[in-house]
Amino acid sequence: MTGDVIPRSKTNPGHYFEDFRIDQEIVHATPRTVTEGDQALYLALYGSRYPLHCSADFAMDLGFEDMPLEDLLVFHIVFGKTVPDISLNAVANLGYAECVFGVPVYAGDTLRAVSRVIGLKENSNHRSGVVWVRTTGFNQDDDMVVDYVRWVMVRKREPGGDGAAVAPPVIPTLAPVVPAADLTVPDDLDLDGYDTDMVGQPDLWEDYQVGERIDHRTGQTIEEAEHQMATRLYQNTAKVHFNRFKQVQSPMGRRLVYGGHIISLVRAMSFNGLGNAFRVAAINAGSHSKPSFAGDTIHCWSEVLDKMEIPGRSDVGALRLRSVGVKDQVCADFPRLDEAGDYLETVVLDLDYTVLIPRRV
Amino acid sequence: MTGDVIPRSKTNPGHYFEDFRIDQEIVHATPRTVTEGDQALYLALYGSRYPLHCSADFAMDLGFEDMPLEDLLVFHIVFGKTVPDISLNAVANLGYAECVFGVPVYAGDTLRAVSRVIGLKENSNHRSGVVWVRTTGFNQDDDMVVDYVRWVMVRKREPGGDGAAVAPPVIPTLAPVVPAADLTVPDDLDLDGYDTDMVGQPDLWEDYQVGERIDHRTGQTIEEAEHQMATRLYQNTAKVHFNRFKQVQSPMGRRLVYGGHIISLVRAMSFNGLGNAFRVAAINAGSHSKPSFAGDTIHCWSEVLDKMEIPGRSDVGALRLRSVGVKDQVCADFPRLDEAGDYLETVVLDLDYTVLIPRRV
Amino acid sequence: MTGDVIPRSKTNPGHYFEDFRIDQEIVHATPRTVTEGDQALYLALYGSRYPLHCSADFAMDLGFEDMPLEDLLVFHIVFGKTVPDISLNAVANLGYAECVFGVPVYAGDTLRAVSRVIGLKENSNHRSGVVWVRTTGFNQDDDMVVDYVRWVMVRKREPGGDGAAVAPPVIPTLAPVVPAADLTVPDDLDLDGYDTDMVGQPDLWEDYQVGERIDHRTGQTIEEAEHQMATRLYQNTAKVHFNRFKQVQSPMGRRLVYGGHIISLVRAMSFNGLGNAFRVAAINAGSHSKPSFAGDTIHCWSEVLDKMEIPGRSDVGALRLRSVGVKDQVCADFPRLDEAGDYLETVVLDLDYTVLIPRRV
Repeated sequence: MTGDVIPRSKTNPGHYFEDFRIDQEIVHATPRTVTEGDQALYLALYGSRYPLHCSADFAMDLGFEDMPLEDLLVFHIVFGKTVPDISLNAVANLGYAECVFGVPVYAGDTLRAVSRVIGLKENSNHRSGVVWVRTTGFNQDDDMVVDYVRWVMVRKREPGGDGAAVAPPVIPTLAPVVPAADLTVPDDLDLDGYDTDMVGQPDLWEDYQVGERIDHRTGQTIEEAEHQMATRLYQNTAKVHFNRFKQVQSPMGRRLVYGGHIISLVRAMSFNGLGNAFRVAAINAGSHSKPSFAGDTIHCWSEVLDKMEIPGRSDVGALRLRSVGVKDQVCADFPRLDEAGDYLETVVLDLDYTVLIPRRV
Repeated sequence: MTGDVIPRSKTNPGHYFEDFRIDQEIVHATPRTVTEGDQALYLALYGSRYPLHCSADFAMDLGFEDMPLEDLLVFHIVFGKTVPDISLNAVANLGYAECVFGVPVYAGDTLRAVSRVIGLKENSNHRSGVVWVRTTGFNQDDDMVVDYVRWVMVRKREPGGDGAAVAPPVIPTLAPVVPAADLTVPDDLDLDGYDTDMVGQPDLWEDYQVGERIDHRTGQTIEEAEHQMATRLYQNTAKVHFNRFKQVQSPMGRRLVYGGHIISLVRAMSFNGLGNAFRVAAINAGSHSKPSFAGDTIHCWSEVLDKMEIPGRSDVGALRLRSVGVKDQVCADFPRLDEAGDYLETVVLDLDYTVLIPRRV
Repeated sequence: MTGDVIPRSKTNPGHYFEDFRIDQEIVHATPRTVTEGDQALYLALYGSRYPLHCSADFAMDLGFEDMPLEDLLVFHIVFGKTVPDISLNAVANLGYAECVFGVPVYAGDTLRAVSRVIGLKENSNHRSGVVWVRTTGFNQDDDMVVDYVRWVMVRKREPGGDGAAVAPPVIPTLAPVVPAADLTVPDDLDLDGYDTDMVGQPDLWEDYQVGERIDHRTGQTIEEAEHQMATRLYQNTAKVHFNRFKQVQSPMGRRLVYGGHIISLVRAMSFNGLGNAFRVAAINAGSHSKPSFAGDTIHCWSEVLDKMEIPGRSDVGALRLRSVGVKDQVCADFPRLDEAGDYLETVVLDLDYTVLIPRRV
């Protein structure tokens, strides 16, 4: 036995609340070249049918170099990189805001991520605090592919310790909605050849009304192997998703599904009714109101919250949507809140986001 | 609440029996670029070992440009495109016929599908009818990759409604077997360099006898995550495969495995005994005699129904095969029919198809 | 019925002990072109984060042509090819030794495998014997990609038959450890640009001490669909991994997880503490001390057994490691042997292997 040898720990302890400083820049590890293999797995996991992401011919007809990866796949890969640095010691993920998607990502691109701390607020119990970070994902040409703010509650290294070590609270001001002028319309986008027959749905920007609600009329049951494979593909290391042994000892009693897996399921299922919404351009806010587990069947519905014109473009518009993911319940009645205004027990996602969709010309 | 806003439904209602017309052409949505990612997933799902489909070197030695995708993967992708238009309101899938495979499909090709209605027959109960369609899959050069007839029983929109709106029955005449002259031998196929060592089995066309039966002596257990991932990869939207919540309320009580998943399992397992049958050239007929569910272990056996020469080729011949998929039973006794001539409860597939296999020269 | 037709069996019976001869060369079937799809599936199955294998930019900065496949993925693919010839009639896998990894393997390479029988020893019960083979995997340029010795206990065709037919025992002498001089350092490896920030861990060769033990502090739960997909991807045909129907009748009562799946899980999880160990260079010995099943949660820890300099290189060194996989138990206490020196019931893997890691310059 060589138990006497005790060098410093080689494993990543993650950051605690005391470790974060305003304006601190965190370069995340694990650069990642995305491939056609990732795209195929994404299809197999969610069954997405947006032709922009599964047909190179369709994509090139619209001015893209090739079929771009799904926007949310890019988000998940960038998000995954931040977990070891930002949320390994998190108590809770509290929210997202100001998420915009940038240049399209193609198979062969290499993605990396950097975060900057933009807010810090210690909790009054001195055991934890809230950390706001702005994370930016880049491709190999240093073009922004996604940029978002996320805030999490992080444990202190020394609970109940001296709060004085921590600077006064800084709480960032966040936009409730990404303005239309801040949305990225891909360069060279040309919708002249947009063929709704290849989507199988006729409805364009003009056909949607603010307040309209759509039951997407489909459901997907989640299996443990599926959400585990997804989350590992994103190199997301949060233990709650993979470790049954640990989770059975937790109050939940079982593995939790990565919240982003639900977002992707809802985006894929909302194709049925929003098939021409070819791009997720922004995420304004999102709440994983209840956890999801393997065995849950997710249904969803959407509401059009707003219609926005895109400055300088008459061929493409934006829809601000609320999409609600619901487990083990159909969505004909658009379930969301109870009479007291709280989320129903069955609601697992309430996502406020913005999509691009062709206009009639 | 904005419940007053009720635009027309945005979701796809599918076609009902009244919506089909003889000679109607249906252009299916979702063009699909196939990739090496699809091939890898196909391997992971079925464990296929035909070297033509997993070795670029082996394929190019035979005159192919690259390793072609598995024939059945092409079938499933084309089939998947037809589901939202043809079988969303189907009561039952009744059969296939005259399925021929065309030009090889390579990673990078983009597939699309078109169907033509070739038969219609309203049922006497006026609640549904049978629709025959001929579906053709094309690549980006408009070459045919697969062409087949399928018939399904489809609900009427207005059950018991006026049958007079529907034209007199048209029942197509279908060939019981695809003739050898109609089989596609890939251009530039050159079997001079065919190396049975790379297959691990010596038997060629001459070694098989009509009436010979082969127990493939292997079995594969199906998991929910596997058949769900397969069916989503094919962008097949039939709800019975994905929605546990809905299925537990159905007579089956659980999710059904896509019938094509069983066909692919049987084709992969029949490698052990038919390893040199390098190409599925045609499907003559097929019956999913009983449904399959997760947890079933599929075994299979095959019978040589016929041996056919290929016009103009002395290097390659065809075998017409019956392959039978059986659940939770070994195949040493070649199970298929009971004494009354009905399928045994354990038989989940009875497939009549034609493969290409090298001849001794 | 055509039961009268009984040609010789078309299926592979595998080799029995009597079929092996010293110096016999066995050319294995199923050449395999590896792709980006394989890499993506490997990520999804194990969540590996070594940037050499997931970032083309990182790999090319180190002098590689592109990101190479994970070393263990190469091992599993080569190993899979040997199963139909070597271990289809095996009673037990007894060990590995002298495993060295050769030239890097890139997407697009085509792998094949050849084995040579180097040892034979009939058991005293005349029912089985031990077969030692040296297996070499090659790429399309006939460069060695992996080379290892494996020994298995194989049934005799005629149990209790005449042992005289079998030659006198030949037991090969195997090195307990692959010497540093026999490790392959990839051509053109240039560690000048090695960026530990992209790994997220600072520790290099100098930072590890012989005798140091590392709890990797993570666990992964195995699902049936996952290990089945992995093993099929490797075209490993061992029935115990796929056939629930057969396994429920066996003493184990259920499907066994392929031992290599555990090795890959442990390698991926040991990233947390060994992140800069960019290459598995050799496997010295390995024991799957207990079987693993779906539902098991695997944790792991490692011990530095030795530190080796690489002849002619001052920029890269080797660590000889013991990594131990443990099921349903955390590794803070480094579980391995009981007081009697036997493996604990929870230990599923004890792997002795050698990794390359940059040195400080």
